[in-house]
Amino acid sequence: MKNDLDALMEKNGIDALLVTGPAQHNPAMVYLTGLHHLSTADLIKKRGEPAVVFHGPMERDEAAKTGLRTVSYSQYPMAALLKETGGNRVQAAVLRYQRMLAEAGVTSGKVMLYGREEIGPAFSIFSALQQATPGLTFTGDTGEALLPAARATKDEDEIDAIRKMGQVTTAVVSEVADFLTSHAAKDGRLVKPDGQPLLLGEVKERINLWLAERGAENPEGTIFSIGRDAAVPHSTGNPLDEMRLGQTIIFDIYPCQGGGGYFYDFTRTWCLGYAPDEAQALYEQVLAVFQQVRSEVKINAPTASYQRRTCELFEAQGHPTVLSQPTTERGYVHGVGHGVGLNIHERPWLGSGAGPQDLLLPGSVFTLEPGLYYPERGLGVRLEDTLWARPDGVIETIAPYPMDLVLPIRH
Amino acid sequence: MKNDLDALMEKNGIDALLVTGPAQHNPAMVYLTGLHHLSTADLIKKRGEPAVVFHGPMERDEAAKTGLRTVSYSQYPMAALLKETGGNRVQAAVLRYQRMLAEAGVTSGKVMLYGREEIGPAFSIFSALQQATPGLTFTGDTGEALLPAARATKDEDEIDAIRKMGQVTTAVVSEVADFLTSHAAKDGRLVKPDGQPLLLGEVKERINLWLAERGAENPEGTIFSIGRDAAVPHSTGNPLDEMRLGQTIIFDIYPCQGGGGYFYDFTRTWCLGYAPDEAQALYEQVLAVFQQVRSEVKINAPTASYQRRTCELFEAQGHPTVLSQPTTERGYVHGVGHGVGLNIHERPWLGSGAGPQDLLLPGSVFTLEPGLYYPERGLGVRLEDTLWARPDGVIETIAPYPMDLVLPIRH
Repeated sequence: MKNDLDALMEKNGIDALLVTGPAQHNPAMVYLTGLHHLSTADLIKKRGEPAVVFHGPMERDEAAKTGLRTVSYSQYPMAALLKETGGNRVQAAVLRYQRMLAEAGVTSGKVMLYGREEIGPAFSIFSALQQATPGLTFTGDTGEALLPAARATKDEDEIDAIRKMGQVTTAVVSEVADFLTSHAAKDGRLVKPDGQPLLLGEVKERINLWLAERGAENPEGTIFSIGRDAAVPHSTGNPLDEMRLGQTIIFDIYPCQGGGGYFYDFTRTWCLGYAPDEAQALYEQVLAVFQQVRSEVKINAPTASYQRRTCELFEAQGHPTVLSQPTTERGYVHGVGHGVGLNIHERPWLGSGAGPQDLLLPGSVFTLEPGLYYPERGLGVRLEDTLWARPDGVIETIAPYPMDLVLPIRH
Repeated sequence: MKNDLDALMEKNGIDALLVTGPAQHNPAMVYLTGLHHLSTADLIKKRGEPAVVFHGPMERDEAAKTGLRTVSYSQYPMAALLKETGGNRVQAAVLRYQRMLAEAGVTSGKVMLYGREEIGPAFSIFSALQQATPGLTFTGDTGEALLPAARATKDEDEIDAIRKMGQVTTAVVSEVADFLTSHAAKDGRLVKPDGQPLLLGEVKERINLWLAERGAENPEGTIFSIGRDAAVPHSTGNPLDEMRLGQTIIFDIYPCQGGGGYFYDFTRTWCLGYAPDEAQALYEQVLAVFQQVRSEVKINAPTASYQRRTCELFEAQGHPTVLSQPTTERGYVHGVGHGVGLNIHERPWLGSGAGPQDLLLPGSVFTLEPGLYYPERGLGVRLEDTLWARPDGVIETIAPYPMDLVLPIRH
């Protein structure tokens, strides 16, 4: 949580954070500033002190909305910096960072770098800044030890934002189910009132629209795939596919607040009209594993234990898994979950990213998403909810929704 | 253009490109792969050879859609790499990059880094890769000399994509105008059928919806601001503002293809019902400057000349500008334009980013957007079109739309 930051900085021997980039679709910045229309900014937070936001002069009103101390880049005019460095843009950027760091009171120690930006110029500029500033050590948080660690447990206002996205998500899922079941079937697939087959791309257009109606975005897309595509976990679906009855549809939807805020993550598997025996059997196995693992989740347990447990349960059912066959593309082929917040995937890691020391801390928001995939049989089933490990120890499904496999279709 | 890449690599002494990150909302990657649902990928292109895409094993079908040679990360199993490096994640990433570079035939020379990703881990990993790989030199394209230079002039399929976004943009602008003028006025502001005032936030919701209906996104938001807010160039507008008659509204809309593709950029200034004399006068001055500069644009002229010319024209009208007062917040306070493509702002630069050697090359797509701002008078006017410098020398407005100031409102 946010108020863990100073303690985490101390624990990791970090004297300052430097976050760069916009205040939209940039998790580290949005975490510290809130969602604002800042197209280019730097934020520097010295340990034990509030953060300072550096912003373009044209964005002063937006910068003020962060509630943080603001300093305009016009304090460091680029023309003067270029003059000082003989026209060298990298060295001009270095000078500006040195002055901004000084303005924020950061004169020695270790500075952790954050922000989603073009990595090439950042690599050149921070390499040059490092060389020109021996009193400071710049480093990336490759161990996710600081900001991602704070972000792994959520404050109440973050839970509110994620819950709202969960409500948006299930409302849209419900609209999609109603939309599909409002169609008649003909020749084994859904048809529109004009008799033409309903296409997968048309369903996806509705999904985008219904998300936008609710102020949400889906910057990473939506998986809505049928048949063989559903059997490849991250195939997003072919827009020209028809909505055939009795085939598994995987509907994995992960929208975020407009502007790049908090996400929600949710998957259901559907069969239109009826489920063939082998789809039904696979579904029941995934549901059983979901329910079993869900019932065993508890606070302060090692997060890696759930992936192992999921693999063991699937193997007991006779499926290959990544536990015994790390590169398998049949059976259970991915991780059982991940944290959800300003990134769709973030700490806590529950799959292969989890270390033995990672525990499921109170305040964590994370997915459980076991699945089985048999591409050669055109079968895929995945079920996913986003859960909150409440401080009181209860594991809460943030946005409950039925897990039924079959969507009834009139004939 | 894309087929300039090898020549630009040779000219800049670059032996390979390395692009990292997703194939959505990541301009360098999208440029080389197209828009695809790849959440994590690396692309390596050796000079004179086609690019190779490295992808997660679960995204093999999406990777195949790029049409490029693909290699799964499963060729470099992380578990084995971690074992080899004693559990050091940074060194494991270094090993994987060394092997991927070797796979792509890159064994010596200079490698230019691209991709929009978290800069912290990238800084640590590429610093360590540099140290471990003395035969290669890794660098960022701080001079925008290579990929941004190729991207500054557009291929025909890029023009098609931008034109479609232009059509989406003007269609939505037209819907917004119709929506506003469908309202009645009462007590000097627009009211809804129920007699309640129409709020700015309600207009913005429609904008998002009408963009989504057309498959577009606005990841960087939309400026729709009125009164004093319109006088601050990048204020995005207060959702609770009423739509008052006779105040200047700045409507700056810059959507992109769904998934993070090509942008369009467009601004109109409107007054509802009537324009007060001082708004009308300011509008006519901006329009005159727009038309004058627009008429003078020609291929192969220095791009910086348009900003200087715009400043001179505004100063001749008696306005302060950034030419004589670089930090002014009154009068003409920003650059006259910028390139538009997979970034909303990219080469060619027409404002302060333009160097003396930058020419307006055939194939360039760029904005012209002069404006005048007087915050203390609550007045702001900006007019913007996106233009294409066609190879035949014609400067074409990609999506023409009237520039009228007043939207008539019934009383």
